[in-house]
Amino acid sequence: MVNEPRGDGGPTPRLEGSSSGSESSKDSSRCSTPGLDPECHDRLREKMRRRMESGDKWFSLEFFPPRTAQGAANLISRFDRMGAGGPLFIDVTWHPAGDPGSDKETSSMVIASTAVNYCGLETILHMTCCCQSREQITGYLHKAKRLGLKNILALRGDPVGDQWEEEDGGFSYAADLVRHIRSEFGDYFDVCVAGADDQCALGTTGLDAHRVIRHRAGSDRGQACRGPLVCSVEWKRQDKGYHSLRQLVKLSKLEVPQQIKDVIEPIKDNDAAIRNYGIEQAVSLCQELLASGLVPGLHFYTLNREMATTEVLKRLGMWTEDPRRPLPWAVSAHPKRREEDVRPIFWASRPKSYIYRTQEWDEFPNGRWGNSSSPAFGELKDYYLFYLTSKSPREELLKMWGEELTSEESVFEVFACYLSGEPNQNGYKVTCLPWNDEPLAAETSLMKEELLRVNRQGILTINSQPNINGKPSSDPVVGWGPSGGYVFQKAYLEFFTSRETVGALLQVLKKYELRVNYHIVDVKGENITNAPELQPNAVTWGIFPGREIIQPTVVDPISFMFWKDEAFALWIEQWGKLYEEESPSRMIIQYIHDNYFLVNLVDNEFPLDNCLWQVVEDTFELLNRPGTEQETETL
Amino acid sequence: MVNEPRGDGGPTPRLEGSSSGSESSKDSSRCSTPGLDPECHDRLREKMRRRMESGDKWFSLEFFPPRTAQGAANLISRFDRMGAGGPLFIDVTWHPAGDPGSDKETSSMVIASTAVNYCGLETILHMTCCCQSREQITGYLHKAKRLGLKNILALRGDPVGDQWEEEDGGFSYAADLVRHIRSEFGDYFDVCVAGADDQCALGTTGLDAHRVIRHRAGSDRGQACRGPLVCSVEWKRQDKGYHSLRQLVKLSKLEVPQQIKDVIEPIKDNDAAIRNYGIEQAVSLCQELLASGLVPGLHFYTLNREMATTEVLKRLGMWTEDPRRPLPWAVSAHPKRREEDVRPIFWASRPKSYIYRTQEWDEFPNGRWGNSSSPAFGELKDYYLFYLTSKSPREELLKMWGEELTSEESVFEVFACYLSGEPNQNGYKVTCLPWNDEPLAAETSLMKEELLRVNRQGILTINSQPNINGKPSSDPVVGWGPSGGYVFQKAYLEFFTSRETVGALLQVLKKYELRVNYHIVDVKGENITNAPELQPNAVTWGIFPGREIIQPTVVDPISFMFWKDEAFALWIEQWGKLYEEESPSRMIIQYIHDNYFLVNLVDNEFPLDNCLWQVVEDTFELLNRPGTEQETETL
Repeated sequence: MVNEPRGDGGPTPRLEGSSSGSESSKDSSRCSTPGLDPECHDRLREKMRRRMESGDKWFSLEFFPPRTAQGAANLISRFDRMGAGGPLFIDVTWHPAGDPGSDKETSSMVIASTAVNYCGLETILHMTCCCQSREQITGYLHKAKRLGLKNILALRGDPVGDQWEEEDGGFSYAADLVRHIRSEFGDYFDVCVAGADDQCALGTTGLDAHRVIRHRAGSDRGQACRGPLVCSVEWKRQDKGYHSLRQLVKLSKLEVPQQIKDVIEPIKDNDAAIRNYGIEQAVSLCQELLASGLVPGLHFYTLNREMATTEVLKRLGMWTEDPRRPLPWAVSAHPKRREEDVRPIFWASRPKSYIYRTQEWDEFPNGRWGNSSSPAFGELKDYYLFYLTSKSPREELLKMWGEELTSEESVFEVFACYLSGEPNQNGYKVTCLPWNDEPLAAETSLMKEELLRVNRQGILTINSQPNINGKPSSDPVVGWGPSGGYVFQKAYLEFFTSRETVGALLQVLKKYELRVNYHIVDVKGENITNAPELQPNAVTWGIFPGREIIQPTVVDPISFMFWKDEAFALWIEQWGKLYEEESPSRMIIQYIHDNYFLVNLVDNEFPLDNCLWQVVEDTFELLNRPGTEQETETL
Repeated sequence: MVNEPRGDGGPTPRLEGSSSGSESSKDSSRCSTPGLDPECHDRLREKMRRRMESGDKWFSLEFFPPRTAQGAANLISRFDRMGAGGPLFIDVTWHPAGDPGSDKETSSMVIASTAVNYCGLETILHMTCCCQSREQITGYLHKAKRLGLKNILALRGDPVGDQWEEEDGGFSYAADLVRHIRSEFGDYFDVCVAGADDQCALGTTGLDAHRVIRHRAGSDRGQACRGPLVCSVEWKRQDKGYHSLRQLVKLSKLEVPQQIKDVIEPIKDNDAAIRNYGIEQAVSLCQELLASGLVPGLHFYTLNREMATTEVLKRLGMWTEDPRRPLPWAVSAHPKRREEDVRPIFWASRPKSYIYRTQEWDEFPNGRWGNSSSPAFGELKDYYLFYLTSKSPREELLKMWGEELTSEESVFEVFACYLSGEPNQNGYKVTCLPWNDEPLAAETSLMKEELLRVNRQGILTINSQPNINGKPSSDPVVGWGPSGGYVFQKAYLEFFTSRETVGALLQVLKKYELRVNYHIVDVKGENITNAPELQPNAVTWGIFPGREIIQPTVVDPISFMFWKDEAFALWIEQWGKLYEEESPSRMIIQYIHDNYFLVNLVDNEFPLDNCLWQVVEDTFELLNRPGTEQETETL
């Protein structure tokens, strides 16, 4: 399926990857991101070649661009969830009528670029050429390259009417587009082509359930292309039940085999049964395809749906959700970020925001944060960008965070409910916070009890990690990186809290001066710290066989000041604005925004018991001691 | 003493460092070498300012360029030893008659540059201007800058005759030289000047033992200079006994106080007593100077001698030999190496050779070795450069390594004697080897028994370290870096051994495939490894409070191929060439050079017991098992 423009033309269908793409392999001749899967930044053709050589079957997923902004936000969440199952790639279709190359959040271009940049997925962007000008196409390709897209599925596309005529200098066949891409962009893109092949009629199980895409486009024009043969499973609405299925069959003028009709007819009113039958059929079909030895991978037309495809893949044993992460944070697949292996810990729960704010960087920290010049974070004003916004709509957020807030304490309770997983007083579970759009990380659960206790007392935690003194990199909770290694962490705690609490905290921290580094800042930027102004503190690192040390997260004082703006703004942008202006709820959030401090604490003694809980307990004790003078005035 | 060209001219004698030198402070605004003393690369004026502010008295040492090449080699060893006591700086005098700016190993320029680059010492180069042309001086200054020298003591120098005349456009006073340096080199150099000040006559203890250098040169020309006041202790030959002293007194037309004469006269034939008295006098003088509160530091005219100055400093409590190293290897003070914090482990015992071979690099690895492009090591052909050669002359080496070798085993025995510290069969201790010019490192002693055993059996070790799983950075044996941290190591073993042993070793290593990385290479470059071709393996690293991770040593496969050439060449250059060509001894060394392999092993499991000794034991067992087929043929 992948175009190999300078293949040797020999009789073997195996890609001779080593003979081409030499520039990119020279690029990576010294592996600079040892923590990552060394193959994860290879070209798609290389990944395919390796999987074919090893006989390791893959799967891939096709999506189409959604019609609405909310649909786009939902699709991106789906990318995150389905990406976890380990697809070799996804592809995003191209519909000329839908303004596919625009900057709209629903365009093919933006969806594919979001998948690459923000979800870290190897992505193929479809592109049709029929009825489009050479300049238009070239513009799309330049844009795709700029956005970090590396793979194009070159298609002819359907003409507007029933017939079409070859245009002079225009594109009449996919092969014309392929030739254009090669002449304008050399070897930059991996170019895929599609071709239905009737000889591959394995379809004894029917359901229009298979198509074969063979790497043979342009062959009618005498162009010799070679590449892996991929079998695709089209998966049309069988999870929507019988009537949907019947409609599809009618539309596509398909002949459904009698044996299938015989099964379906008696259960036609039982949607669940139809769905189960469909899944079973698909599983058998896939098993047959894989057993044939003719297909190295399965390509699923998901129709943007999740359940059935996931279920089929799980039953096939191909859903390889690997709890081990290459790095503790979600990596991007943009080629210019291939060496990135250090980030400030602050964006741990908002990796997409981090990627967004650093998208203009020319270089990314590699090995050491301190090497980079003073970081220039883009401003974050677009809190409602579809890939940055909360997955939950306003009504749900109000149910979770309170239709009406009555006090600062009612805010504390929201944090506590998020941590405990217990329903709030109105019976709703709090599954996200403005700073955490996902449920609690497994690692955070290790400290759940302590977190609950301190949040109830107004230490509103938004980021934390326990100390780890050399656990195996395969540890299901805190592990990351290649196997055979050891991971380490310094205990970290980040929270909002009141001026009064900060006063007591500062008194307590005097006792921990040599052990705990802190940064304490309010929305106006008033900054109290005992850490060197320009020195990052590594808080996560890993040691692996035969590799350099990797330190993927640091507490960087300068970045913290950028994060501070975002963290404070989220109070208003995501929470306060749910309420009417001047309403008591809105004013409570505004008060916290204006008066609380954002605090981060690092316990440098990673081999000892985490002292940060003791720091917080001591602070509460000091606060509750009657008649104690706090240092609030000095702030 | 340090010229502050853009000082504020105010009444306080404290340097206002922050108002000038802003370029260099911007340079270092992000500390990129967290493992090093963050102050060690500051300008001398900054170091002085901080020491004065903190009231922390310093000492400094003056040397003159030696007359012979052997003298130069000896002086460099002295720099290493006296540098360990913690001088704030050293200075090297300038004698126009001695070709001070040349490339001779005895020139002031080369000695000062060696002190900076190879001994890591903050160094002031004297420079006189009298009777030298503007072009000559400019040339010297450019050369000094290129060599990494940052401090110049600008002096007038003595005219050739008794009188001198001001030259047109030439330099008549030190102030002319200062002005010239500033106009040609801006703020690049820290410029010091000298001035005797009779008002500072503290000399109740006599012995011409003090001079005061005050930062006031050029003041007669109306130039306002401010800087720290440094008191210098001249230390003339009092350790050479009475007669030397009398000669000096005569030469310098000094008046020796009667109270001193009274003490000396009765002991004039007892050199040791005279020496002790001299030391005591100097100690009292220094104590008086320090107690006066007028001097922030003491400057010693060592006359290139070591014992007395060291003794005085020790008695004063100013000799601050700190067992903690900033990094595990000897750092260079060249400004362009300020960020260097990673080196291949291979040159651990030959840091000067490493510095020499990388002197042309424009950038030095900082944080990660893998970031640097393929390293381009300079060829090492000049094994007899005065700072690379052995400290011991040929006769001594022959006594240590054998006047006559009879077999490979007699070579093994030399290695064993070096490790055991026991005399060899001729009664001489082996204090160095071609690969180790210093006695055994304290760390190596941790494994002495194991090393001894394997060397006796032909595993000729030249570099090794035990595994360390988080010892305090203050550990006297394996610690390095700032306090409060933890250091780690992977066990490492590097040795020469025969082809037969390598055959058995390779069989044994199959059992350790996932745990031990190895590189095995012979002089022709035949290379056997299980490590990724381009991936360095970090074998020493440290975790410190509030800092990024530091990994100062790595096993880098590419660098190993450069080291291999040097390591094999040392057999011939330093050992074989001690013997006549064609002599049996020479042929034994040549045989080893031609046939042995150089092996390095890394045990990646740093938290477990070091398995490398077991690997070697298993190898011996396999070798000694009767009738076992080795894989020698496959090599």
